[in-house]
Amino acid sequence: MFTPKKKTPPPRTIGLLTDFGLSDPYAGQVKAVLARKAPFCPVVDITHDVKPFNVPQAGFFLAASYAHFPKDAVILSVVDPGVGSDRKIVGLQLDERILIAPDNGLLALALKNAWAAEVRAFDFSEAMNAPDKVSNTFHGRDVFAPLAAWLALGGDPAGLGSEIDPQSLVILPWSHPDILPGYARAHVLHIDRFGNCVLNLEAGSIGVPRALHLSSPAGGAVTYATTYADVPESAPILLEGSQGFLEIAVNQRSAAKQFGLSISDTVELKWEA
Amino acid sequence: MFTPKKKTPPPRTIGLLTDFGLSDPYAGQVKAVLARKAPFCPVVDITHDVKPFNVPQAGFFLAASYAHFPKDAVILSVVDPGVGSDRKIVGLQLDERILIAPDNGLLALALKNAWAAEVRAFDFSEAMNAPDKVSNTFHGRDVFAPLAAWLALGGDPAGLGSEIDPQSLVILPWSHPDILPGYARAHVLHIDRFGNCVLNLEAGSIGVPRALHLSSPAGGAVTYATTYADVPESAPILLEGSQGFLEIAVNQRSAAKQFGLSISDTVELKWEA
Amino acid sequence: MFTPKKKTPPPRTIGLLTDFGLSDPYAGQVKAVLARKAPFCPVVDITHDVKPFNVPQAGFFLAASYAHFPKDAVILSVVDPGVGSDRKIVGLQLDERILIAPDNGLLALALKNAWAAEVRAFDFSEAMNAPDKVSNTFHGRDVFAPLAAWLALGGDPAGLGSEIDPQSLVILPWSHPDILPGYARAHVLHIDRFGNCVLNLEAGSIGVPRALHLSSPAGGAVTYATTYADVPESAPILLEGSQGFLEIAVNQRSAAKQFGLSISDTVELKWEA
Repeated sequence: MFTPKKKTPPPRTIGLLTDFGLSDPYAGQVKAVLARKAPFCPVVDITHDVKPFNVPQAGFFLAASYAHFPKDAVILSVVDPGVGSDRKIVGLQLDERILIAPDNGLLALALKNAWAAEVRAFDFSEAMNAPDKVSNTFHGRDVFAPLAAWLALGGDPAGLGSEIDPQSLVILPWSHPDILPGYARAHVLHIDRFGNCVLNLEAGSIGVPRALHLSSPAGGAVTYATTYADVPESAPILLEGSQGFLEIAVNQRSAAKQFGLSISDTVELKWEA
Repeated sequence: MFTPKKKTPPPRTIGLLTDFGLSDPYAGQVKAVLARKAPFCPVVDITHDVKPFNVPQAGFFLAASYAHFPKDAVILSVVDPGVGSDRKIVGLQLDERILIAPDNGLLALALKNAWAAEVRAFDFSEAMNAPDKVSNTFHGRDVFAPLAAWLALGGDPAGLGSEIDPQSLVILPWSHPDILPGYARAHVLHIDRFGNCVLNLEAGSIGVPRALHLSSPAGGAVTYATTYADVPESAPILLEGSQGFLEIAVNQRSAAKQFGLSISDTVELKWEA
Repeated sequence: MFTPKKKTPPPRTIGLLTDFGLSDPYAGQVKAVLARKAPFCPVVDITHDVKPFNVPQAGFFLAASYAHFPKDAVILSVVDPGVGSDRKIVGLQLDERILIAPDNGLLALALKNAWAAEVRAFDFSEAMNAPDKVSNTFHGRDVFAPLAAWLALGGDPAGLGSEIDPQSLVILPWSHPDILPGYARAHVLHIDRFGNCVLNLEAGSIGVPRALHLSSPAGGAVTYATTYADVPESAPILLEGSQGFLEIAVNQRSAAKQFGLSISDTVELKWEA
């Protein structure tokens, strides 16, 4: 009998998103494990500078970034205040891409905004019983990285974990903002290095509002815009930016400073309904 | 008839230099796009920590770094206060290496110091009309990265942009310091983590000056040197360092602190002519 | 006569550990040289954020990280206050992995804790006479990187340097803590972004102590633990963590703040002998 030679799947890109920072050797050790276990898979850092334990910020980074990766990328996100507890390890498959994370809400925004034709979810908690030495405090290196490597080499997710209902993944409140006619209450997911304040409001979610007013420690009128050039310099805008979410921004200035905003703050927006 | 198989050009290394930082997902998204569009091209970060909008600092980083890359590298620099305006996107070809940047002076120092046999320049602004969805605020990811990927895969720059006169690229004052016999007025392009202050004076540009005096908020005598060992510990030197430009330095101490210098400051040097 | 085709060795992963930071172009230039000289070798950063000139911290990072790399990795560590002096450049081969560093104590902890079957050491100082232009101030780029590239491409270490006694490598006091029955005097090698304070005490080196007391600016009782879940929240622990060394830690809080500890501090531990 003739057995056709099994075609080796091409190595998949591995994306990384963590709160490990780059000053400790933790992200490096994760990448060392990937180099050892998945030697031909390119690794791309989204960022390792999620604020420690800040799951909403990580959820935003992931939702804004995953679709820019190759169609079959494996994207590993580790922001894991519950390491050592019985929280699950889960995977969210959006078409061919697979997002892996602890089941703590990190995948909520990516799932909510997914336009994938096929959406599946897996419980990979079995990976915690890996034969290798597993530390109790660094699952990123000892559990998540080998799991990501295994998938990146072409492993079948259904062969490693049990399929679960995507709707059973942990969802947290900030992934569903309060939007009413003429009013929204939103959460500052992230403030970037330019001082832009990203809200948990998807681009388009409040239409194109007129006479828009922002309430924050230092509120005021803001203009809805899709580019800085739409308004005079230093005029505040609610920007439909590049990340898929609305941002409070000021051209070449820090909106965070101008409005006294910090990450995780709540803001209110009112407009003509 | 026989058509010889077209030889695929080997993948070229892509260098990256931006002011995106590493705390936001922006540099990661650029690299995700490169992994998607140019999957076999190695990516090397020069740094993503150019001070926001600081074109002179980026120009120095680029001039000091590009020649260390492989002979056919594609080096993408994005420090782009004019994103969304009608600034051009340009390429500078120095022998086989290609440097891509917004046309805002970023390429000035690299061009000035180039010892390439062949120097060509291209206007790649057409790339802004790419069929993909292009954000108005993040050309680094949506315009520059696909352009760099295309070139890194062997695309002919002349096929994508129109050739222009290299002398038509934007030049800014800091790329041409004032040098007179016995006197120079210079700009602090960069202060490194060790406190060394890099000036816009190329190594060798003022000869080997004697009785050198530095005027700054806290000036004094400095010794011209090519290594720290040339002077006693803690003595200030004007160092012909590793970056191709003169640096004010103090062995194992911070020259920035000792002389009260900040990036973009102006300093005066006087010596025996 | 028949000469069998010499098999090309597969490209080896190169690990990097430096105090260059990521805000200057120095780490990028090292990687540009590696991309030029060893184009198919993956590069993995352990971290570039060793505190400037802090050899003990770098020694800890290396000892904690090297074993996670592929079996044949070449790991280059450059924290080099003696650049330009006559300090040696050395290599430590632990089975197939090779660690390269200036001979200033950086390799001490890795050597002390090595469980390699084969341990060899090499003096690579000859590399400083490389034909390429070598700067006096940046051996990381001009000497160490070409050396690492050469080894990563399969170069025989014995062909490049002379073999020396591993016990002749520079050892510094912090690599050998004072441990007596019921008492240890230790050095804070590192404080991570979560505030965990890593000591120069290997996991297991003081057994499983009872009635443990920490003396520091703000001392007190601590519990020996292998995971945060062993104690109530916010209780201080001496953690046998993921890095192979004991850490003073507080679950989801900063032990450094709680105990007033800084890197390089000395602490005393007492327990029931």
